[in-house]
Amino acid sequence: MIIILKKQAEEAQINALKKEMTDQGLGIHESEGVNTRILGLVGDTSIVDMRHIMANSIVENVQRIQEPYKKANRKFHPNDTIVDVSGVKVGGGNFQVIAGPCSIETKEQITEVANDVKNSGAGLLRGGAFKPRTSPYSFQGLHGDGLKLLLEAKKATGLPVVTEIMDASHLPLFEDVDLIQVGARNMQNFELLKELGKIDKPILLKRGLAATIEEWLMSAEYIMAGGNENVILCERGIRTYETATRNTLDLSAIPVIKKKSHLPVMVDPSHATGIREMVEPLSLAAIAAGADGLMVEVHNNPAKALCDGPQSLTPEQFDSLMNKVNKTRQFFETL
Amino acid sequence: MIIILKKQAEEAQINALKKEMTDQGLGIHESEGVNTRILGLVGDTSIVDMRHIMANSIVENVQRIQEPYKKANRKFHPNDTIVDVSGVKVGGGNFQVIAGPCSIETKEQITEVANDVKNSGAGLLRGGAFKPRTSPYSFQGLHGDGLKLLLEAKKATGLPVVTEIMDASHLPLFEDVDLIQVGARNMQNFELLKELGKIDKPILLKRGLAATIEEWLMSAEYIMAGGNENVILCERGIRTYETATRNTLDLSAIPVIKKKSHLPVMVDPSHATGIREMVEPLSLAAIAAGADGLMVEVHNNPAKALCDGPQSLTPEQFDSLMNKVNKTRQFFETL
Amino acid sequence: MIIILKKQAEEAQINALKKEMTDQGLGIHESEGVNTRILGLVGDTSIVDMRHIMANSIVENVQRIQEPYKKANRKFHPNDTIVDVSGVKVGGGNFQVIAGPCSIETKEQITEVANDVKNSGAGLLRGGAFKPRTSPYSFQGLHGDGLKLLLEAKKATGLPVVTEIMDASHLPLFEDVDLIQVGARNMQNFELLKELGKIDKPILLKRGLAATIEEWLMSAEYIMAGGNENVILCERGIRTYETATRNTLDLSAIPVIKKKSHLPVMVDPSHATGIREMVEPLSLAAIAAGADGLMVEVHNNPAKALCDGPQSLTPEQFDSLMNKVNKTRQFFETL
Amino acid sequence: MIIILKKQAEEAQINALKKEMTDQGLGIHESEGVNTRILGLVGDTSIVDMRHIMANSIVENVQRIQEPYKKANRKFHPNDTIVDVSGVKVGGGNFQVIAGPCSIETKEQITEVANDVKNSGAGLLRGGAFKPRTSPYSFQGLHGDGLKLLLEAKKATGLPVVTEIMDASHLPLFEDVDLIQVGARNMQNFELLKELGKIDKPILLKRGLAATIEEWLMSAEYIMAGGNENVILCERGIRTYETATRNTLDLSAIPVIKKKSHLPVMVDPSHATGIREMVEPLSLAAIAAGADGLMVEVHNNPAKALCDGPQSLTPEQFDSLMNKVNKTRQFFETL
Repeated sequence: MIIILKKQAEEAQINALKKEMTDQGLGIHESEGVNTRILGLVGDTSIVDMRHIMANSIVENVQRIQEPYKKANRKFHPNDTIVDVSGVKVGGGNFQVIAGPCSIETKEQITEVANDVKNSGAGLLRGGAFKPRTSPYSFQGLHGDGLKLLLEAKKATGLPVVTEIMDASHLPLFEDVDLIQVGARNMQNFELLKELGKIDKPILLKRGLAATIEEWLMSAEYIMAGGNENVILCERGIRTYETATRNTLDLSAIPVIKKKSHLPVMVDPSHATGIREMVEPLSLAAIAAGADGLMVEVHNNPAKALCDGPQSLTPEQFDSLMNKVNKTRQFFETL
Repeated sequence: MIIILKKQAEEAQINALKKEMTDQGLGIHESEGVNTRILGLVGDTSIVDMRHIMANSIVENVQRIQEPYKKANRKFHPNDTIVDVSGVKVGGGNFQVIAGPCSIETKEQITEVANDVKNSGAGLLRGGAFKPRTSPYSFQGLHGDGLKLLLEAKKATGLPVVTEIMDASHLPLFEDVDLIQVGARNMQNFELLKELGKIDKPILLKRGLAATIEEWLMSAEYIMAGGNENVILCERGIRTYETATRNTLDLSAIPVIKKKSHLPVMVDPSHATGIREMVEPLSLAAIAAGADGLMVEVHNNPAKALCDGPQSLTPEQFDSLMNKVNKTRQFFETL
Repeated sequence: MIIILKKQAEEAQINALKKEMTDQGLGIHESEGVNTRILGLVGDTSIVDMRHIMANSIVENVQRIQEPYKKANRKFHPNDTIVDVSGVKVGGGNFQVIAGPCSIETKEQITEVANDVKNSGAGLLRGGAFKPRTSPYSFQGLHGDGLKLLLEAKKATGLPVVTEIMDASHLPLFEDVDLIQVGARNMQNFELLKELGKIDKPILLKRGLAATIEEWLMSAEYIMAGGNENVILCERGIRTYETATRNTLDLSAIPVIKKKSHLPVMVDPSHATGIREMVEPLSLAAIAAGADGLMVEVHNNPAKALCDGPQSLTPEQFDSLMNKVNKTRQFFETL
Repeated sequence: MIIILKKQAEEAQINALKKEMTDQGLGIHESEGVNTRILGLVGDTSIVDMRHIMANSIVENVQRIQEPYKKANRKFHPNDTIVDVSGVKVGGGNFQVIAGPCSIETKEQITEVANDVKNSGAGLLRGGAFKPRTSPYSFQGLHGDGLKLLLEAKKATGLPVVTEIMDASHLPLFEDVDLIQVGARNMQNFELLKELGKIDKPILLKRGLAATIEEWLMSAEYIMAGGNENVILCERGIRTYETATRNTLDLSAIPVIKKKSHLPVMVDPSHATGIREMVEPLSLAAIAAGADGLMVEVHNNPAKALCDGPQSLTPEQFDSLMNKVNKTRQFFETL
């Protein structure tokens, strides 16, 4: 971390600031230019609050050199993390497809879709029981009853299940869920993240709608700092001015994450685009960019889906997608 | 709501879609162009899920004509809502300034600041006990102990208090809090919003970092739909590509909200800019744009503040600000 | 186009508006809801200025149903356009890689790079002579002298050349250039677009930093409306709040363009990311998403490059990239 | 400027880089941390191309400490610049309102509006003859004929005139124009900026749709570096995800500019919002934030305006606005 001091800073003030830093166990290297005097902090600066230093009246600017995350940082953990989801591995060369409906609606629906996506080669089943909806008047999910139906589909197919949690108080209901999803709108619900740091179940952490990659990794750090290092990231599009797609899928985030972190990263082209016919090209592009998996919405009757029908594939479309996904995976493995 | 059908839609499919709509109690007006056939829905379309209709294979596009919010809509509630916060009124011509430190740190700190801001004319005292911080290694607030100190400062000064809630399970601790703040990162924490809809305490709902004005009003609608209509909105800057300020304060939101909704709307220039010297010009601009109040961070020793020091005013700076705020308010009242 | 009228609109005013529309040769279909009355315009609405209608005091809102572009619209031109650049075809299954340095610096540099990229399989040579630089103190390009060097490299290798124009007055210098590039910052330099519409040389139109896909197609329409239909689009990243990459590459734009337009679309991963090591994964992702070509920066000595060194590949890196690009192309052709 | 070196950088490479810097007349201060070695550059770094240094394989990162602009920088020019537009002063306490129609349409229209806005107290007359329109099918302005009509209105009223230039080749037509406007879409049309740097006429430089404040000041620097220091900045809204207004007016830019630069800065609430009724509250807010002037669209018959009718005020509305603007100005002058 580099502290740029104001020209008019007095020696006594500078010494006080330096003492404050060394009291935190940091070393200091000074350098002086014509117009600027600079303090370089040496040591573990992830604990230092930049804005606290900015508040000092003699400070012109503060710039971070080291990343503010440690546990999620590839520098301190060079090997890819492989997350084990009830026997299904994600990361470090293990590619998985999570598939299923946006919402769990009926026993027939979730079981039928579960069987279909399993037969097509999906490794995990998704289905929402708690649904974050913009409108209070939209379908909010079946809650506990939905989770029960999801677990029945798990039993029927043997597929590990993934579903979203919206509040830490619901955790007891998630005991038999294999991978707990934190949705984009809760990426900075820090109370929830802290609670998920205390359990040992894998977490699928979606990127927030307006989160930088650094903020996203900091949210992973919240979970990991609590002791739970089983975090899978999931890029799902960010908010931009473009309206042709629901969000703007940021595939550059894949190589960025791969460089900065050891955590696996998946891509959700269904939510990113909101448009069924765009799921295939962007799924294949995600594989080409190096993603560790995909999350795809599949519904046995999209036109009747209680949520996100426009982006859901039919089981036939998903089967065709999986065929291409598998071939594409094999191709890139040997490229 | 207008449904634009695909050219090749068949009569049987169209009839099925029409039946689905009339079954929801909606009327339908049809119109046919050269290339397009349009169904106009008549009735309460706030309950209709646009994306559900989009999922129908014969639908080209769906466009909303009416706003999706009802209780927050000025059309159905032409008069300004006045929210009563333990006797302090906000909205409908009642202007208030909320002031205090970002975080409650010590008894001396919060009580001293409370006295100072009261003497300068603040109507409500703010102070954070639960702090949403990007990094798990930053100060997270004093939690329950912080709330106790805040309530002591309330007792000492008589100022109603405002503080942020981060999880519905903490609600019992907020019993004596006068105005409960929902922070930007929780604006779409729908489980929290639903719980706040069940209580009768006023809620200060900050705009999310990447929330449209419509989404913000829909979050207010969540609280109001539950029965709690005491919602005050607070603009605090949105995320853009500009980095000269922490966020981009969207003052246009004030006249937009005033047109679309009857709810009071305040402005937080401290968080929006993140820079102390910008608080004054943007506070005055917020008044000129029609805001119903301001939320300003004040700390007795900004350089030692445990959070957000760079944007905190000293009590002296706040006193000078209040002097100008009051004169500006009077000026615009008579303009 | 749909015009939603205000409730209180009077019959005489409505009739005046209807006359204004029918005078432009448009038909009108009316529909009436409980709260709204709607006029649907029938005919060629691409000539209608929505905001002109919005200015009418009886109009509540106007929504476009048909796209505002005609010549660039796939609806009226279902087959892929194939642009012939001096014998090198782009689009309709013809994939090309444009490669070369950001700036033309010396005869040796451009000729050496030209030979290298030709040997690796590039179809076109790029090199900038007029450089749009944020700072007036940065290298601005060699201008006419640079173009001469580029044409020498063309002669030496036989590769058609691509270079950016920054002002219509420079057109005489571009006589022997095979493909004229309009840069992101000039995508809405309408005077330039109009001039390029009058010539018969192919144009490479880069997407503006903050341009929607629709605005980008409207800029193509400017060129095409003038008579020059040889337009190749090039996605090069858009401006968002994310700072980990120089811009955010919007690969979703590829399938969107493919659906809405018949024009070929290439991808420039070098400018989009600004980071050398990200060029390969995003090049492959662009192919997977359906791009008709790539534009890649190559320099024989990136560390000494006068511009954009951090994103330039060495000729060796480019050769390795082309090897993968070719295999990936073949794979997706048969998928 | 600070160069952060990679851990594995070798001494010989570091020395080569240091020599490259000292050869440019820069001094170097080194500092070494546990994980990082830092070179601090001392001297005029505005000429240094950060990305050129980034391209060096031993460089981890480069961060700028000093602003990249000099002539526009308040550090080197502490007093406010006052721009004299044919006797009408802008900046340094001189507040002006530019008013007039979006487009010049007829002699009657422009002269009538000119008289009206003069009577209401406008200091300058605006009117577009060259119009940047998204669609080639929209009205493009009257060009040379329009300029003639504008100059007749100038003669009739004595008001200095402001109009937009879209191409440097049109400059001869602008000889009698008092203030030449560079529109948002041309803010980075560097060839145009360079030409405007060679003349001695004042320039009104609008902020680009996606331009950072720093890029905006760099565009001013282009003009100033050429010798023309008569630049007035104009904030007109930036592109964000919010769609309730046409753009998002960034009033924070006013105090930021005031701190960083000595140039006057005006605000255009008409283009920023695109909505007539929002012009007044945001005009007053702009004054409160410290703007040096306003640019407001006025049309004698907005419903018939050939462009931007929805945001144009009638002369009566403008008169009412001016009344409030004058009072607000006086109020803030004495606050």
